[in-house]
This record gives sequence, C-alpha cells and structure tokens, in this order.
Amino acid sequence: MSLLVIGTVAYDTIETAYTRRENVLGGSAMYFSIAAAKYTKPALVAVVGEDFRPEHTKLLKDNGVDTQGLEMQKGRTFRWSGRYEVDWNTRVTLETQLNVLETFDPKIPQEWRAAKYVFLANAAPAVQLRALEQIDRPSFVMADTMNLWIETSREDLKKLLRKVDAIVLNDEEARILTGERNLIRAAGMVLGMGPKYVLLKKGEHGAFIMGSDVHFSLPAYPVEQVIDPTGAGDTFAGGFMGHVAASDRCDPPTLRRAMLWGTVTASFCVQGFGPEALVARTQAELASRYDDLMTIVSP
Amino acid sequence: MSLLVIGTVAYDTIETAYTRRENVLGGSAMYFSIAAAKYTKPALVAVVGEDFRPEHTKLLKDNGVDTQGLEMQKGRTFRWSGRYEVDWNTRVTLETQLNVLETFDPKIPQEWRAAKYVFLANAAPAVQLRALEQIDRPSFVMADTMNLWIETSREDLKKLLRKVDAIVLNDEEARILTGERNLIRAAGMVLGMGPKYVLLKKGEHGAFIMGSDVHFSLPAYPVEQVIDPTGAGDTFAGGFMGHVAASDRCDPPTLRRAMLWGTVTASFCVQGFGPEALVARTQAELASRYDDLMTIVSP
Repeated sequence: MSLLVIGTVAYDTIETAYTRRENVLGGSAMYFSIAAAKYTKPALVAVVGEDFRPEHTKLLKDNGVDTQGLEMQKGRTFRWSGRYEVDWNTRVTLETQLNVLETFDPKIPQEWRAAKYVFLANAAPAVQLRALEQIDRPSFVMADTMNLWIETSREDLKKLLRKVDAIVLNDEEARILTGERNLIRAAGMVLGMGPKYVLLKKGEHGAFIMGSDVHFSLPAYPVEQVIDPTGAGDTFAGGFMGHVAASDRCDPPTLRRAMLWGTVTASFCVQGFGPEALVARTQAELASRYDDLMTIVSP
Repeated sequence: MSLLVIGTVAYDTIETAYTRRENVLGGSAMYFSIAAAKYTKPALVAVVGEDFRPEHTKLLKDNGVDTQGLEMQKGRTFRWSGRYEVDWNTRVTLETQLNVLETFDPKIPQEWRAAKYVFLANAAPAVQLRALEQIDRPSFVMADTMNLWIETSREDLKKLLRKVDAIVLNDEEARILTGERNLIRAAGMVLGMGPKYVLLKKGEHGAFIMGSDVHFSLPAYPVEQVIDPTGAGDTFAGGFMGHVAASDRCDPPTLRRAMLWGTVTASFCVQGFGPEALVARTQAELASRYDDLMTIVSP
C-alpha cells in the first residue's frame, strides 16, 4: 500500500577511523525510501539543488522509488559532513550546509495526498506539521526528530507528537525529550505526550517498541564489520514502515515483525558507504538475514 | 541435579549516586548460589574470616544453599568497596582488601566432587584450575574471569579455557582478551581458544550466547529503577546454571531458556542492595517475570 516519506536528500562527506568519502549520496528520505522500496513502492518528497546528479535520481527510480515529489531548486543540495570515532558510537558533525533546505516547504504531489502510510523524517517540527496537513486521512504516521528540535522547537514538537501514531527516537533524544535517564520510563513518558507507539533505537544495542498493546525489544543484527553507520536509523525506519505498508496493517504482530525487518534492513546499510550496500541486496538476501535474526532472537 | 560454585563471599561497601551502604553481604559465590538456589540446591565453596556473621551463613542456608564448603579462616573476610556513577555504566573500585582470600586454596567437600554442573567464579585462573582438578567428571563447567587475570595470568587463563565448556565475559573483558572491538568477532575468537560456548554480557544492553550449535541474543529485562548493580553478572550466571542444573541438560534449547532465566534473576538482583531484593523474591515472581520477558523478546 501507499507509503510516503517527507525528508532530505543530501550529499555527505563521511570520515571513519579507516577512510574518508566525499559527496556520498545521503539524506533521511533517500535512505528511508531505498530501504522501504525493498518491500513496497514508496514515494519521496524532498528538495535538491541544481548540482544533484541525474544518475542519483535514476538510482532512486531504478530502486523502486517514486520520485515525482523530488523537487529541484536553484542553489546547491543540502550537505552534511561528519566523522565517526573508532568505536562507532561517537559521531561528530563537522559541517552542515543547509543550501536549498533553508527554504524547503514540502509540497505533496496530488496523487500522494491519499497516502495511507507516512514517514515524517527528521525536520523542523513546523515543516513536518505542514507536510502532514496536506495528507488526507493517513492510517499510520511515524515521525523522527533530533536533539536540535527538542531543544529549540519543543512546543511544535509536542503538537506534532499529538498528531502522529509513532515517534522514533534514539536513546539520547528520548533522554533529552523527557529528562529521564531510564529508557523504559522515558518511553512511557513519551507515550504520555500523544503517540500510540515509541520506537526507541539504541544503535548497536538494538531497539524496542513500546505502546499500550505492544512491548517488544530486540538486539541489533550482529554485523561483523561496520563500514559506515550513516543512515542506519532512517534505513531502520524504512524497513519498518516498508513492512507495515506492504502488510497494509499496523496490529501488534505486524509491528513486531516490522521491527525485525527494520533491523535487518539497517544491518545491510552499515556494511557499505551511503546506500551502496543496501542497494546491492536482493529481497532473497534480506529474507535470508531475516530468518537468521529470527533464529538469533527466538527464545 | 548437583550444582557447585567455587568463588568468593565478601563484605562490600557500595556507593551509588544516591546513597552509600557499608558491609553489604557480597561476593561472586554468594550472589551465584542465592540465584541458583531459586532453581536447584547449589553448594558453595568459599572462604570467610572470623568476622563473618552467623546470620549470613543462616541466610545462605535458609535460601537453599549447601554451605558445608564455606570455610572459616583466621583473619577478616574479603572486602571490596566501589562507587557507581549516575549512569550505572561506570564502576570505580575504591578499595580491595583480600584478607583471608590471599591464601584461599579451594577444597571441594568429598560429596561434592561428583558434581555434574560447576561454576568457577572469578578468581586467579590457577585457583580455578586447582578447584576443577578436584572434581571427578563434570558434565558442564562454566568459568568467569576479569581484566586483571587476562592481563596478568593469560597463560593460566588459556589453559583454563581449554578445560571448560563455557566462559562468561563482559564486553570489555572480551575485547581485552581478544584485542578485537567487534563483539561477534571477539566471541568467535574466544571460541577458538577452547570453550564450546561464550556468554557475552553487555550489562543494561543484554547478553548473547554463542557456540557452534547456538547463537541467541536477548536484551536485558527492562528494569525501571536500578538500586545496586553489584553482583548482577554472578546472579545472571546463577540463574543460567541453576536452570541448566535443574533441567539436567545442556542442549541448545535449554541454554536459550537458561539465558532468559539468568536475565530474569539478574533483573531482580539490581533492584536492591546486595542480595536483599533477590532473596525476597518467590519462584512465582521469577516465573511471572520470565513470562513477561518471553513476551517482550518473542518475535
């Protein structure tokens, strides 16, 4: 069923302890849609600059992403540059150039206003709200956010939280949003802010989903060699929402399975720079790793 | 079936961000045996000093521990003092007084030399080896260790690893032992050193077991309020081995369930100082939390 993501497409410069890559295709909506396209046909709404390379639009299309909502504007594409420490747990942002993102005002293409499943990738909550207003009657809306918005746009974020079905947060964001260190209590407090479900990501330590009718926790898939963790969170969300949309249901058993699909999809993402490792994976490879993960986590 | 633990009994002084407690009953064999006694009748081999209080021997007996191997020697009981930082992940040892432990030479009581299940709690590998030599033909031996021995007694430790069925390590120990940061690769390297199974503990992030016939990973039980994490690792081992011994088998399905019982038992341990919270728990309460955990981790 119809799945829509509103977010960013970017060019990233990534430094790891081992190597450095410039102008890697990046952005939340890019990672999300490439991931979700393994399970359904998602549409992406994002803005890029005149420097955006046609081969990258082609890559999105070739990988099953509907790009009619990919708007090109005067100026340069959003750029992010960051460095990972050797343990992968510490990421330092070296530079952010908003460029065309500065004036981004998402416009949902007419045929996508009826989307049933929606992911509002990390953006200013006011922008996320404007995007959400354009969608008729979505069945399941999930939003992402970041520390910056928790600290600078808390009121807008609280408004957003009352309008979405699920929020995805990492451990640090959950703590900053609630002021509570214990993640279980923090998740409970976030549920009190409005959403039916909280997806709490703990990086290499896995993730859990909590809501009134579901509490499911699982470890990350055991990847032996991480190449680049950029986009793992959005890829997780893409796998999760891709499965929900493909199943066209959001009952607890579906949400549990979606957590596994999100985990599996993200595990491929970190095995290459940008989307390269994920793009190269077939559905059969994803399914095989899903079976592995099922074996690893089943008591 | 018969379960034997060789380790320490101690008096601990524990500082947390919230409070401080002196002379809390502690020690690896104490935590292990109190935990294991929820599932079977374990025997403990350890040494205490003349200051060891009779009420604490009574506490062990009342909780189902066979204490005939609890030797009293001249001098004072082993003492440890440590402080936890507010995030619980950092523990600083403030003081260690070996006292009677300095000359500890474990003597396994005659009737326990036929034990089928054995836990060699953290001690100098040479001491662990001397204990193991006294046991006839154990079915399943698990050992614990610590950074100190990895750094100072590596050859003895390697000898020990070739003689045990399972080794339990935390993430830091696994990394120091192997020089490998990635825990999956580190676990694989430890398997190459001899044991059939590695149990890798990640504290609040759960644990996994790896061997040629099993790979099972699970999150920690979501405890909302930690009071004192001291002994959680030994309690985990106690719940694990208690279940294995009570089942009298060590096939992969049993080992998987044992990981859940270890997790559940440890989750009660951290909810009070020393063994107090665990002691107060009934088997019905343990079983109820086991069911909760099963729900939380089942895909």
